[in-house]
Amino acid sequence: METTEEILARFAEVRAHTERLAAPLSPEDQTVQSMPDVSPTKWHRAHVTWFFETFLLAEHEPGFAPFQDRYWFLFNSYYEGVGPRYTRSMRGAISRPGAHDVADYRADVDARVTDLVDRVDGGTLEKLRPTIELGFHHEQQHQELLLMDIKHVLSLNPLQPVYAGAPRLPGTPDRLGWVGFDGGLVEIGATGEGFHFDNELPRHQQWLQPYRLADRLVTNGEWLDFMTDGGYRRHDLWLSDGWGRVQAERWDSPFYWHEEDGVWFEHTLHGTHPVDPALPVTHVSHYEADAYATWAGHRLPTEAEWEHAAVTQSATEENVADLDAFHPRAAGPATGRLRQLLGDCWEWTSSAYLPYPGFHPAPGAVGEYNGKFMSSQMVLRGGSALTPAGHTRAGYRNFFPPGARWPMTGVRLASGD
Amino acid sequence: METTEEILARFAEVRAHTERLAAPLSPEDQTVQSMPDVSPTKWHRAHVTWFFETFLLAEHEPGFAPFQDRYWFLFNSYYEGVGPRYTRSMRGAISRPGAHDVADYRADVDARVTDLVDRVDGGTLEKLRPTIELGFHHEQQHQELLLMDIKHVLSLNPLQPVYAGAPRLPGTPDRLGWVGFDGGLVEIGATGEGFHFDNELPRHQQWLQPYRLADRLVTNGEWLDFMTDGGYRRHDLWLSDGWGRVQAERWDSPFYWHEEDGVWFEHTLHGTHPVDPALPVTHVSHYEADAYATWAGHRLPTEAEWEHAAVTQSATEENVADLDAFHPRAAGPATGRLRQLLGDCWEWTSSAYLPYPGFHPAPGAVGEYNGKFMSSQMVLRGGSALTPAGHTRAGYRNFFPPGARWPMTGVRLASGD
Amino acid sequence: METTEEILARFAEVRAHTERLAAPLSPEDQTVQSMPDVSPTKWHRAHVTWFFETFLLAEHEPGFAPFQDRYWFLFNSYYEGVGPRYTRSMRGAISRPGAHDVADYRADVDARVTDLVDRVDGGTLEKLRPTIELGFHHEQQHQELLLMDIKHVLSLNPLQPVYAGAPRLPGTPDRLGWVGFDGGLVEIGATGEGFHFDNELPRHQQWLQPYRLADRLVTNGEWLDFMTDGGYRRHDLWLSDGWGRVQAERWDSPFYWHEEDGVWFEHTLHGTHPVDPALPVTHVSHYEADAYATWAGHRLPTEAEWEHAAVTQSATEENVADLDAFHPRAAGPATGRLRQLLGDCWEWTSSAYLPYPGFHPAPGAVGEYNGKFMSSQMVLRGGSALTPAGHTRAGYRNFFPPGARWPMTGVRLASGD
Amino acid sequence: METTEEILARFAEVRAHTERLAAPLSPEDQTVQSMPDVSPTKWHRAHVTWFFETFLLAEHEPGFAPFQDRYWFLFNSYYEGVGPRYTRSMRGAISRPGAHDVADYRADVDARVTDLVDRVDGGTLEKLRPTIELGFHHEQQHQELLLMDIKHVLSLNPLQPVYAGAPRLPGTPDRLGWVGFDGGLVEIGATGEGFHFDNELPRHQQWLQPYRLADRLVTNGEWLDFMTDGGYRRHDLWLSDGWGRVQAERWDSPFYWHEEDGVWFEHTLHGTHPVDPALPVTHVSHYEADAYATWAGHRLPTEAEWEHAAVTQSATEENVADLDAFHPRAAGPATGRLRQLLGDCWEWTSSAYLPYPGFHPAPGAVGEYNGKFMSSQMVLRGGSALTPAGHTRAGYRNFFPPGARWPMTGVRLASGD
Repeated sequence: METTEEILARFAEVRAHTERLAAPLSPEDQTVQSMPDVSPTKWHRAHVTWFFETFLLAEHEPGFAPFQDRYWFLFNSYYEGVGPRYTRSMRGAISRPGAHDVADYRADVDARVTDLVDRVDGGTLEKLRPTIELGFHHEQQHQELLLMDIKHVLSLNPLQPVYAGAPRLPGTPDRLGWVGFDGGLVEIGATGEGFHFDNELPRHQQWLQPYRLADRLVTNGEWLDFMTDGGYRRHDLWLSDGWGRVQAERWDSPFYWHEEDGVWFEHTLHGTHPVDPALPVTHVSHYEADAYATWAGHRLPTEAEWEHAAVTQSATEENVADLDAFHPRAAGPATGRLRQLLGDCWEWTSSAYLPYPGFHPAPGAVGEYNGKFMSSQMVLRGGSALTPAGHTRAGYRNFFPPGARWPMTGVRLASGD
Repeated sequence: METTEEILARFAEVRAHTERLAAPLSPEDQTVQSMPDVSPTKWHRAHVTWFFETFLLAEHEPGFAPFQDRYWFLFNSYYEGVGPRYTRSMRGAISRPGAHDVADYRADVDARVTDLVDRVDGGTLEKLRPTIELGFHHEQQHQELLLMDIKHVLSLNPLQPVYAGAPRLPGTPDRLGWVGFDGGLVEIGATGEGFHFDNELPRHQQWLQPYRLADRLVTNGEWLDFMTDGGYRRHDLWLSDGWGRVQAERWDSPFYWHEEDGVWFEHTLHGTHPVDPALPVTHVSHYEADAYATWAGHRLPTEAEWEHAAVTQSATEENVADLDAFHPRAAGPATGRLRQLLGDCWEWTSSAYLPYPGFHPAPGAVGEYNGKFMSSQMVLRGGSALTPAGHTRAGYRNFFPPGARWPMTGVRLASGD
Repeated sequence: METTEEILARFAEVRAHTERLAAPLSPEDQTVQSMPDVSPTKWHRAHVTWFFETFLLAEHEPGFAPFQDRYWFLFNSYYEGVGPRYTRSMRGAISRPGAHDVADYRADVDARVTDLVDRVDGGTLEKLRPTIELGFHHEQQHQELLLMDIKHVLSLNPLQPVYAGAPRLPGTPDRLGWVGFDGGLVEIGATGEGFHFDNELPRHQQWLQPYRLADRLVTNGEWLDFMTDGGYRRHDLWLSDGWGRVQAERWDSPFYWHEEDGVWFEHTLHGTHPVDPALPVTHVSHYEADAYATWAGHRLPTEAEWEHAAVTQSATEENVADLDAFHPRAAGPATGRLRQLLGDCWEWTSSAYLPYPGFHPAPGAVGEYNGKFMSSQMVLRGGSALTPAGHTRAGYRNFFPPGARWPMTGVRLASGD
Repeated sequence: METTEEILARFAEVRAHTERLAAPLSPEDQTVQSMPDVSPTKWHRAHVTWFFETFLLAEHEPGFAPFQDRYWFLFNSYYEGVGPRYTRSMRGAISRPGAHDVADYRADVDARVTDLVDRVDGGTLEKLRPTIELGFHHEQQHQELLLMDIKHVLSLNPLQPVYAGAPRLPGTPDRLGWVGFDGGLVEIGATGEGFHFDNELPRHQQWLQPYRLADRLVTNGEWLDFMTDGGYRRHDLWLSDGWGRVQAERWDSPFYWHEEDGVWFEHTLHGTHPVDPALPVTHVSHYEADAYATWAGHRLPTEAEWEHAAVTQSATEENVADLDAFHPRAAGPATGRLRQLLGDCWEWTSSAYLPYPGFHPAPGAVGEYNGKFMSSQMVLRGGSALTPAGHTRAGYRNFFPPGARWPMTGVRLASGD
């Protein structure tokens, strides 16, 4: 059990990390909402603060008063239970509070949370602990969203801005190998050790047929083969909805690719560079991932297959040392184990995002966290190079609509026996 | 194994039934497309004919020539493999061929199919049999669509037209009871006996926790209680996408209900009548079904739970004698078994429409029948009062997007143990 | 002053002409609404009937009761003063009343109008006369709309249906000549002789500079030169809104043209034929007309210039003998006078549709006839081959939005001195 | 004729005024595009700079090279002749160049323009003069747009930001009086003295009937009477397109008004305040202006009537001393002359924005300045409190679509005799 000091140290670190991620961004960068799915950087910085203010301070701080009345309206994301909120698609119309005002808001709430945690007795702290913990993980989720979103913002700018210098670490992935699993009656879901979101419960049994998973992610080079073979022009490879999107939006490559004089370039947070065939393909939708798997004669894994495999091999994050790489790296050498499991790309599964048998959302507004989105989305597993260190784990259920392309997604193939 | 005569008798019966369903409709009725999801009656009559022409005659009739070149373009629904097709949402712009021209088309293809089946030797007939069989079931699916669609067309007409006279058979459903099932490792999917669509394969194992199902469908009376209790105004009951629809489209009751002076009326194919509290609620979306279940403190069944229950109790169609009732009927008296399983309302499950483990679509254009729609839809089970007799069965996987309200859907509650 | 018999004869003739125009159309044809601007044939037949019922019978028939209550709701076009009405864009969803039911409605109203006119005394007849007269002209307007609309309906049908046989009367137009006018202080607007709509009043003075008008319409051949010269690709020729439409809707030729293997074809009510270079170009928007005039180094006439010229040369309809030609004809030989003034194509002017100085709409719902549309539309003059005989005149102000292409429009060039 | 020094002094002043207007705005404020019609402040600052760079430096500076290649693409507004340009509706997605980068761009172009003007000989200067002059007036137009646009941006912010302190100068307008004019054959358009845009040419004759104009603008108090009398609920007062907008967008008051507890408030650049009945109503569309005039039993003036009246009484700007008032002021005491003619509100006329007889746009890209917008817009006259001092004049033709509400518009009534 963490001590008060440990909690506060972790709080300080999580909060500081958000500010480190925003530091390279100008006030103008932090203001833009480039599409309805995207939120401005300063909105993310304020919203995670609002979360602590609303669910921790408002409920437990003696004599609580909000930092600014209207912030409750502006920085509520989707909690109907908290009251009305500003229209999501119009977040980019809000120039004030500015980036510096948000810093003031953050500092105020930081001080008050620290003060509250410092003062309460042990019993009260135990009661607050789940909310504080949820606040940490919530802020870490928004650290990834902040990066996803600013990547999109910068991608629209003809000046091709660079968010962060350097890291491109190519390599030569050896041939794709396969790792087999027996299946049978397996257990899925949170074990009760360590943090988990409510949607990882209850732990329950599932029956799996024997299956195999590719030991690394699909590479850009393999994706180029798919494209060369007419992957974006052959309707027989696609789900009907996916084919509709290919035609309506004229998809012909991954989201951040564009062609110049026969060379494919990729927009990354480290700048715009020629596509490196050794790196994992990323920013493809579920539709594209599924079409690729069909083309390759395979399929996507189910989320249970993925989790069982990851747990079986005690997957851990591989590249945490290199925190300044905001792009997945090439697979290391083959080892007979699954590579690139945690922290490269969110891997599309073939599973719809649905409640585990017996799932119940938490009571109150916090119960809106996960459950109400269990419709028309697909599960992704594994975490990405944008996910903050320490935030990935085998049981983590991420989810996006099947057409989403701005998350840092990738593809791992699966195969029946 | 059916003889040639038996096949031809069944062919004649299926084809005649379509025409019987269209008979009460004027040429004008048969022309209208009231929303993009809806197809005109005469389009349905022509499309099922095109199916036999394309997949049977074009491949097997010696010296085949199409009845009319452009019909291939006009009456292809979604088979990319067959060539380009007329825009779905513009089917209502096509006045010609008219209802009588479609009758000529049908007669010509009927004669040629009959002739073909009559002439071929036994070995060839065996090869044709799966396509003929698929054509029967395809036409039966469109018989239901024809009724669903014309119900919508007539619903928009201020003259409140009646499709068919009489049948309203009220009753008093006794209290809702529950039937329990043990679960465990069960088998799901087609057994190989009788017809099945490709999406019912492969038969496979699933692990089910113990569960209970309501012994009858939710009634209009119960739905009115939900409405009275603010069911359409309480965000906490709804999936996020569902709540978005409630607000955007101002849902406040099932699809075909409207209020006049405090009384709720329902549009049916038998006319517009006051809502009968004893009848099953119908024409509700998955979102509404899910919200209702949450409100009631229960949930929707998974498709595996539903199928296992239906197979366990050897479900059969109950009301086939009464073929002129185009609306679900009140539940009969309680028996300790599940009532209203087949042939009242399509029952929303909590399962997304996804491939069974190991599923592969058939090769060629017929392979587009089911597989390519396995995205962003929910499974429904059980058949409805609009489903033709003999077309329902326990393993049948119907599917619609979660917001669809024009199918004849209903709600059966489930409960964990 | 017309006698009762003369009025009734004209009434009978106008009413019969509508039915003659609808006669070649099947019930299915009469049901389709192919775009929101278009109304179904049977709706037009019913609406003009509703006009007599509403503005004549309802006000003057003793013991009046509507033929069918809901028809008032269904067949009101845009008269807010008469009460609510069925959504315009959904007219194609109304299968009933069918084409035969509309015939019954027409017969009933015909009989009652005849009866009313027959019975009233002279003084009353004088009071009714303006409404009867307006009803005639209103129905004639809808005769043209009926043809415009069914032309569009049939154009979408891959079977390329023909509305009426024969008339294509090519010719060889001699070189385009110019006719000059002195301008000065001229009088514009209705003189008080013969019928006029309210928007043709008050007669008033305008100052015109000297000007010249082309003595015939622009031909298809000339339009092909415009196209060959990049007319649809050169932004410098276009108004900004027009260029937006060219790009958004990919305009590359007049509305009903399409290319097959290098040959341009035109959809007409007489079938689909290769474009005849001698015929007037038709079905072009104001934007296209304006771009053409810019390309040609000229401009479009103002409505005052057009009217002054037409009055000066006592323009009359030229081709009335040939009532079965539903397409403009080639210009006859040059005469030093303006040709093709009345009854070939509605000619776009450069004048916005605005009230004449001192204009006041009539009181009551009939006052909604013209005035409320005086915004964002352009004036057209001259009548078209779809306009019924006797309905054209020099002072007639037709109007459409500048992007409209489904009216039978054409282009006459003008030039300053 | 201005000397070089005078030209450069005026250049310095115009350029400095833009920066003064932007000075109260944060980088975040300057980045937001709150609707497609609005451009970000920093875009305006850059675009007017691009105008000098493109039309002056690129054509005349020896050894010209653009400040930044991509700026040509980013800051072209609508000049097709200059090349492709960034999508207008996405200007708010461009965070870089930031507000400071734009200052650098401005400084660079300022220095180079100054240098160019300084160096050229007298003959060359005469050739450059029209472009420099156009650049001044172009920048002044954008000074007004900058204020219009930031007013909209701030209006969406729940924090109700204030752009500039103080000025609210109420008053009590005496009764509305009328001033009569004889009309007859009058001359309209630019005389050749002083600056004019191309759309004010050629000067030409028009015939006017006798008319009267209200001697002041309609006030908020009068507008409240209109609202109280059901002005926004009575279809009979409205043009058809206007009524469509009232219903679709639920208009019930001027654009920047909202009600709280029965009190109407108005958003201004000086903050949000209760509506002052003595001030002119502003931010109403042409549709609203027209409906008000109909309700009042009058009409809007034509642009010729307005110009003739303004010229007749040698109208001059009245309130230039008070440059920090960004809102129209109450009318001063009645004098028998027209009050509030220049510099309070842009006054909607009943004239569509069309070319004067004989108008020809200038050759080259500068010719796109005005002519290509002459479609579906209405003329406004008089200038507003947002128009920079010295930029208004009697012959100035401003134009907006009839539904536009974010310009600072107002209403002056007219009457036939």
